[in-house]
Amino acid sequence: MTEPAPPRGFPTSEYQTRLNRAQTLMADVGLAALLLTTEAEVRYFTGYLTRFWESPTRPWYLVVPACGDPVAVIPSIGAALMGQTWITDIRTWSAPDLSDDGVSLLGETLREVCKTGKIGVPSGHESHLRMPLVDFDRLKDGLGAGQVTDDAGIMRRLRLIKSSAEIAKIRQACTIAGRAFARVPRIATAGTPLEQIFRRFQMLCLEEGADWVPYLAGGAGPDGYADVISPATSAPLTNGDVLMLDTGIVWDGYFCDFDRNFSVGHPSTIAAHAHTQLMDAVAAGLDAARPGQRAADIFHAMDRTTTGGAGGSDAGRNGHGLGMQLTEWPSFIAHDHTVIEPGMVLTLEPGVETRDGRIMVHEEDIVITQTGAEFLSPRSGNTLTVI
Amino acid sequence: MTEPAPPRGFPTSEYQTRLNRAQTLMADVGLAALLLTTEAEVRYFTGYLTRFWESPTRPWYLVVPACGDPVAVIPSIGAALMGQTWITDIRTWSAPDLSDDGVSLLGETLREVCKTGKIGVPSGHESHLRMPLVDFDRLKDGLGAGQVTDDAGIMRRLRLIKSSAEIAKIRQACTIAGRAFARVPRIATAGTPLEQIFRRFQMLCLEEGADWVPYLAGGAGPDGYADVISPATSAPLTNGDVLMLDTGIVWDGYFCDFDRNFSVGHPSTIAAHAHTQLMDAVAAGLDAARPGQRAADIFHAMDRTTTGGAGGSDAGRNGHGLGMQLTEWPSFIAHDHTVIEPGMVLTLEPGVETRDGRIMVHEEDIVITQTGAEFLSPRSGNTLTVI
Repeated sequence: MTEPAPPRGFPTSEYQTRLNRAQTLMADVGLAALLLTTEAEVRYFTGYLTRFWESPTRPWYLVVPACGDPVAVIPSIGAALMGQTWITDIRTWSAPDLSDDGVSLLGETLREVCKTGKIGVPSGHESHLRMPLVDFDRLKDGLGAGQVTDDAGIMRRLRLIKSSAEIAKIRQACTIAGRAFARVPRIATAGTPLEQIFRRFQMLCLEEGADWVPYLAGGAGPDGYADVISPATSAPLTNGDVLMLDTGIVWDGYFCDFDRNFSVGHPSTIAAHAHTQLMDAVAAGLDAARPGQRAADIFHAMDRTTTGGAGGSDAGRNGHGLGMQLTEWPSFIAHDHTVIEPGMVLTLEPGVETRDGRIMVHEEDIVITQTGAEFLSPRSGNTLTVI
Repeated sequence: MTEPAPPRGFPTSEYQTRLNRAQTLMADVGLAALLLTTEAEVRYFTGYLTRFWESPTRPWYLVVPACGDPVAVIPSIGAALMGQTWITDIRTWSAPDLSDDGVSLLGETLREVCKTGKIGVPSGHESHLRMPLVDFDRLKDGLGAGQVTDDAGIMRRLRLIKSSAEIAKIRQACTIAGRAFARVPRIATAGTPLEQIFRRFQMLCLEEGADWVPYLAGGAGPDGYADVISPATSAPLTNGDVLMLDTGIVWDGYFCDFDRNFSVGHPSTIAAHAHTQLMDAVAAGLDAARPGQRAADIFHAMDRTTTGGAGGSDAGRNGHGLGMQLTEWPSFIAHDHTVIEPGMVLTLEPGVETRDGRIMVHEEDIVITQTGAEFLSPRSGNTLTVI
């Protein structure tokens, strides 16, 4: 039985809750405002959803003040779409403007909403500033020395915990990708070029309901592949290969991120054993994934199974957060001590080296509940799927 | 007759030419190195092509020294794929590393290759720095005051002019999207929800040969739509609507960016007239697009046709550069005085307001030749296509 898709968008109350949480955290550290520049940051508080971020030309700004509603300072090309969100204070300029691309308007807005206190810009791990550096320097000069600081990790803290409405969207993305993966045996046969399989797989994702397919990587080879981030080559799939496809599709602005391995013909002993190891590692990770544990604990649980506790691989981690972006905080590594909490959406992504220069990686998506964790992706079987 | 697809990738000589051009420009301004952090910048000198940039977690660095070959300073997860490019000096760390995410390694590398002179980071219009601000500050502190400066517009200057091999890839992307657009009448019929048309159109792009579909926006309504950047809604296409689809597909790392308008049923007088105006504007833009003209001249040529010379619209410009990214420099606006040169790939994108709150926009892709310009996208007919 297919569950109905969740509703698109969020009620305004969702954004008000996010804003209240943000303003509580801002009050704790004395920030007068947050200045946000990236797609996910702007969308988090506004619901502004467009693929137009693919164009690097124009900067977009959102000011989240310590009191009151967010103010959008954006190119006029976005005014109509931003006007459909709950945001009412929308200030625009005609971008691109080569002499002043919104910097004065942004500076005025910040001076208006920040009577006292500093302006926090996300500056830590996994963040970046999506505006030209010369404009950032000009903005800082205009505001006065020391007025701009980091956001004290507030955006990370907020986005680490997903609401039930967010989780429903991620589950929907997982369900769609799961249906596409189930149809892979129909498109991936020995002799088919990998690039053709990649194209057909993306079409399956769309046909099953993906809004778009921002991420697909994979590989194929005997007993595994060299990495997990490569695009397709024209090499034909060959009997004896292990084929891996790893996708992040988007549904209503939320990602899934999981992969599947397939054996072309009867799996080798090495590949079959690796798959079992990966399933054991996922089970160990799932078992460790409960409130109060730390990200490092989940790493060690999986790492004990895959490397005997050697401490990881070239991939650098075996899982991570997930949500509005393909990958988010935390990381399942030995040194990430983030405390696991209900509402976190995470991937379990163990990898094993099958032989020199070849790996197999498996990935599932889970959500942390009050007592443990449950799968959002349709959990893989213990046997490698043969195609 | 279908022309054969160009070869994938580039010969090493293409990268050496790019490097030589960069080093000549660096010598002119006395830069010891370029420090690059974004997907397009890194790929420009390396050919490193992966969709893994969708993950914001890990920073990636490329150091282009004043003499010698580029040095990649990257997460170990990318070592295998970077090893397939012409780059031989690849330095990796196990990312994510929460205490030192490549900053020390990058600092050492920069100190090694930069004996004298400053390090240029792209900082101007349409650029951003893809690394955490705290890491950038740490890097600058480690290198010493004033060691990091902007890139003097070098990356912009290099990427403005495309090689014939690059143009062939953009032409291929245009050809593929053109074939998909030709099939729109089969998927877009009155009663079909817009979101379903968007999904099917992306599938057509893939079926016709797109590697992936990073961009699709559009809209539908009587006599036009409210903007050109919106994602799909669930509203059904209705008789009398003008449907617009604007796509940027990728083929071997290069984009097309053009749109098509369709009339659902017989076009209104307003829509038919607007289409004619847009075709006239494209013709005027094409006529103005030749070496020695300026970006502003092409703007004015189109603007005279669409607004009678009023000076533009909310979209902010009526065309732009195109290549490794959906949009690149220059902009067709009144104040962009970039001199047009052979090898520039540009979009002509005039828009008209059809009635209060509604617009129609048309877009084609062209390449500047020695004497003028030619179309890369299959030029639209003078009559609005009826579906």
